[in-house]
Amino acid sequence: MENTAKKMDTPNAVNGVNVDELFGTINAIKNVPVIAKFKFRANNTWIDGGHNRTTIKNFYGTQQEHSRKTPFVLDADEPPILLGKDKGPNPVEYALTALAACVTTAIVYHAAAKGVTIRSMESRLEGDIDLQGFLGIRDDVPRGYKEIRMYVNIDADAPPEKLEEIVQLGPTYSPVFDTFTRAVPVSVQLER
Amino acid sequence: MENTAKKMDTPNAVNGVNVDELFGTINAIKNVPVIAKFKFRANNTWIDGGHNRTTIKNFYGTQQEHSRKTPFVLDADEPPILLGKDKGPNPVEYALTALAACVTTAIVYHAAAKGVTIRSMESRLEGDIDLQGFLGIRDDVPRGYKEIRMYVNIDADAPPEKLEEIVQLGPTYSPVFDTFTRAVPVSVQLER
Repeated sequence: MENTAKKMDTPNAVNGVNVDELFGTINAIKNVPVIAKFKFRANNTWIDGGHNRTTIKNFYGTQQEHSRKTPFVLDADEPPILLGKDKGPNPVEYALTALAACVTTAIVYHAAAKGVTIRSMESRLEGDIDLQGFLGIRDDVPRGYKEIRMYVNIDADAPPEKLEEIVQLGPTYSPVFDTFTRAVPVSVQLER
Repeated sequence: MENTAKKMDTPNAVNGVNVDELFGTINAIKNVPVIAKFKFRANNTWIDGGHNRTTIKNFYGTQQEHSRKTPFVLDADEPPILLGKDKGPNPVEYALTALAACVTTAIVYHAAAKGVTIRSMESRLEGDIDLQGFLGIRDDVPRGYKEIRMYVNIDADAPPEKLEEIVQLGPTYSPVFDTFTRAVPVSVQLER
């Protein structure tokens, strides 16, 4: 009894991830794969010019709806040089944010599953866009990122030669990395 | 002189976009294409578990560095069911935010260029992810979005049969739509 009580008080956490729950989730999904099917959602309202606002509140997963009490509110805008008023990051900066956060989380969760403790991690990202694409000046120039580079600085409880392997858990498992590097079907349609 | 003064006081704005400046930008780029080359950037710091923080401050474009006085700070986390503490939208929700903001802005700017006034615009997005991919349970399941759907509700100064055409300016010109639907090269490497 004492052991059980102790275990419940001090979860088996690595990198802030409860690995008992993580393996519990993995086993639950192996038994009932349909609980792994998630639907994530966003709502956007245009405000003015390059300024618009996204709210994030609900999602579906484990065969049920989930909702935060208060939505997350994210304003996007363009800087003045791109004819906006700089009231938020611009959309392609949000895209880098999504990538940075996702690769980081993939590293943290998968390192935790392997029992590797991460002491600190920082990263910097840079992506190239030629605005001739967006502006429709040249059709042979992609509208989006031509290339994105992410550099990860990590301090982990692992020998130096293992650090590259730990960093590569990010691109290997990150959903946003996969979304950017694979061609994902996206439909945009008029709501009737 | 009076005309000039008046014009400078009341910019030729459509949808909050100064179309004189927009066409000025397009013409400047046609003359000197290199000014259209932009580099967008993000910095991320891991905090704990699924919680990490991205800051957005600098970018390069028009052959010079640009910097905001204060960085934009964006926290990402996972909801409790995904073993986090819900301190921000999760990475794949940031990805939907980027897409929503970008398609919206592409519609607004390109409608402005065509002289089409938009009175209001809202959209909702939903994307499907099977977490068997992220968790490494099945290698034949994509880690990222299997599909994303965006529905746009728009009120514009255009006949109903033209609205679909206006909405399609979004996927046609949006850099984030292009980034998701084309396979973009992304490198993730250890900073040495």
